[in-house]
Amino acid sequence: MNKPKNDTFLRALLRQPTEHTPVWLMRQAGRYLPEYCETRRRAGSFMDLCRNPQLATEVTLQPLARYDLDAAILFSDILTVPDAMGLGLYFVEGEGPKFERPLREEWEIRNLSAPDPGVELRYVMDAVAEIRRALGNSVPLIGFSGSPFTLACYMIEGGASDDFRTIKAMLYDRPDLLHHVLEVNAGAVTAYLNAQIESGAQAVMIFDTWGGALSHRAYREFSLAYMERIVDGLVREHGGARIPCIVFTKGGGQWLEEIAAIGCDAVGLDWTTDIGAARKRVGDKVALQGNLDPVALFAQPEKIAQEACAILDAYGPGSGHVFNLGHGISQFTPPEHVTALVNAVHEHSRKLHQI
Amino acid sequence: MNKPKNDTFLRALLRQPTEHTPVWLMRQAGRYLPEYCETRRRAGSFMDLCRNPQLATEVTLQPLARYDLDAAILFSDILTVPDAMGLGLYFVEGEGPKFERPLREEWEIRNLSAPDPGVELRYVMDAVAEIRRALGNSVPLIGFSGSPFTLACYMIEGGASDDFRTIKAMLYDRPDLLHHVLEVNAGAVTAYLNAQIESGAQAVMIFDTWGGALSHRAYREFSLAYMERIVDGLVREHGGARIPCIVFTKGGGQWLEEIAAIGCDAVGLDWTTDIGAARKRVGDKVALQGNLDPVALFAQPEKIAQEACAILDAYGPGSGHVFNLGHGISQFTPPEHVTALVNAVHEHSRKLHQI
Repeated sequence: MNKPKNDTFLRALLRQPTEHTPVWLMRQAGRYLPEYCETRRRAGSFMDLCRNPQLATEVTLQPLARYDLDAAILFSDILTVPDAMGLGLYFVEGEGPKFERPLREEWEIRNLSAPDPGVELRYVMDAVAEIRRALGNSVPLIGFSGSPFTLACYMIEGGASDDFRTIKAMLYDRPDLLHHVLEVNAGAVTAYLNAQIESGAQAVMIFDTWGGALSHRAYREFSLAYMERIVDGLVREHGGARIPCIVFTKGGGQWLEEIAAIGCDAVGLDWTTDIGAARKRVGDKVALQGNLDPVALFAQPEKIAQEACAILDAYGPGSGHVFNLGHGISQFTPPEHVTALVNAVHEHSRKLHQI
Repeated sequence: MNKPKNDTFLRALLRQPTEHTPVWLMRQAGRYLPEYCETRRRAGSFMDLCRNPQLATEVTLQPLARYDLDAAILFSDILTVPDAMGLGLYFVEGEGPKFERPLREEWEIRNLSAPDPGVELRYVMDAVAEIRRALGNSVPLIGFSGSPFTLACYMIEGGASDDFRTIKAMLYDRPDLLHHVLEVNAGAVTAYLNAQIESGAQAVMIFDTWGGALSHRAYREFSLAYMERIVDGLVREHGGARIPCIVFTKGGGQWLEEIAAIGCDAVGLDWTTDIGAARKRVGDKVALQGNLDPVALFAQPEKIAQEACAILDAYGPGSGHVFNLGHGISQFTPPEHVTALVNAVHEHSRKLHQI
């Protein structure tokens, strides 16, 4: 577990000085890369690919071979935990993730229990260890999971939803049941992320994809409170290194101060938030990660570079910024546009960091 | 054009004292009402219903017959203006609005021109006049349109979109073209809303359904700036009465101060914003409209009443609040749950207004 040669990402998360602003992209190993599609074809289904540590390692490393990225992220899904609880995760092209056995009855909720990360989620730990071996000491590896509320959305709705009618009806009418699901999820995600850290993840991120669909009061009670429990329970030192933790609520720009207060090292921003204003709001409490609109990658390379520079300038000089998109990269992104982005972030930020 | 007997809604928008907090619901004349579905069946398509002033009047009045609502809203669509420009609006069940002839080529954009509200949109003016006659002096009638950016989303994407890839690529690479579309739209919407006011609308609302999908910088340049132009060009007095104007950007909670500064009388809030904090942020600049999560209407009636009271309490005593949902009512809402909401708002707010 040696320090990576390029530890810019880890230092930025801890708000320590860096020579440039590190950059990685949510969903950087994905369908916009032809080499990913090729490996995916060999693997079979998306879950077959996740469950095969060798192929998961292969796709994790693909974007690093193409681009000068400052971090790798475990190739996996945000929903592995409820899958390991026995709900049966599967994917339908164009419809996103679904569960074969969503939680419909009270007894199903009462019977829910956290999986053993070393058993039901062994394949993830094997992938983490294998990726760390393959990365050597190049760049750090990020582990991750969906947030308790985001997992619950899929577990209860059975898939993606426009309005989250089923889980919200439960939230209003049977908050006790939803709290039970969230408690089990929070325990399970804590154990899962800690097992990833034990297996070699050097930073962890909690993806709260759907917390932003809640009212401000419900967000605090049903999403943020459970992410706080996870952050409280995380192993924060491993092999002599500090393990930073990033929390990202899509659509959470109104609640930054509260997210920054739960003990995480960094807060992810989607593209609707002004990162300069966000920095003033959170002060020196946390680092910030973000926040280019992923759709900006459809623009011409010069324009992409301009947009990236505008975000770097808005954040301003000093450490504590990890450049990223405000959401996962689109499968339709031209791969060469990512080169323009990564180079612009490195070049422009080197100048800013000399100030 | 006499003052309505119940002008609570108009007074609240102008932050004048009222005895209770007025309430109406976005999409209150809609598919959750069996009587609406019955009229709709007789009319044919959704656009046939919009184009028939008599039937549009019938459905506009249906929710007022059932519930003690403080305002009526013209039965129409946010996309009538681009339809009148010749783009061919139609609806596909479960997919939302589409255009037969979306803007694909530069020459199509250069040829775009504002429709004459008295000709191509005559059917809307006839509906407004007919509804006013049918309402008598009971409650005020709200006119509306989509915002220039929201219209442009549909005009350029051709329908709803997950990521607004086409319009955003234009925004980055050909801002001149997008600005041209938005200029034409802003002029067209101004003329359209003014014609609605001439025909009898007693307040107007601009629906910016998709402005919240933009980055903060793009929102200001491509959505807010054009709503400001409309507000500047609106007739603000008609028949001796002040005509209040409401601006609603879904997902705009981070930008309230800026929205409140464009000269509108009221700002709509979706359910993610704390209305108490919002009131502090906008001060006495504007009234606020909102902001119950429409999905809360799936909860049991007692819970709905509790949630409504929590919003009224968060706003606090004093005028300047119009109660509404944070987005349109769902077609799956049990109609009797709306009774519980409307009654709770009236009863609880009467106590608050005595403070």
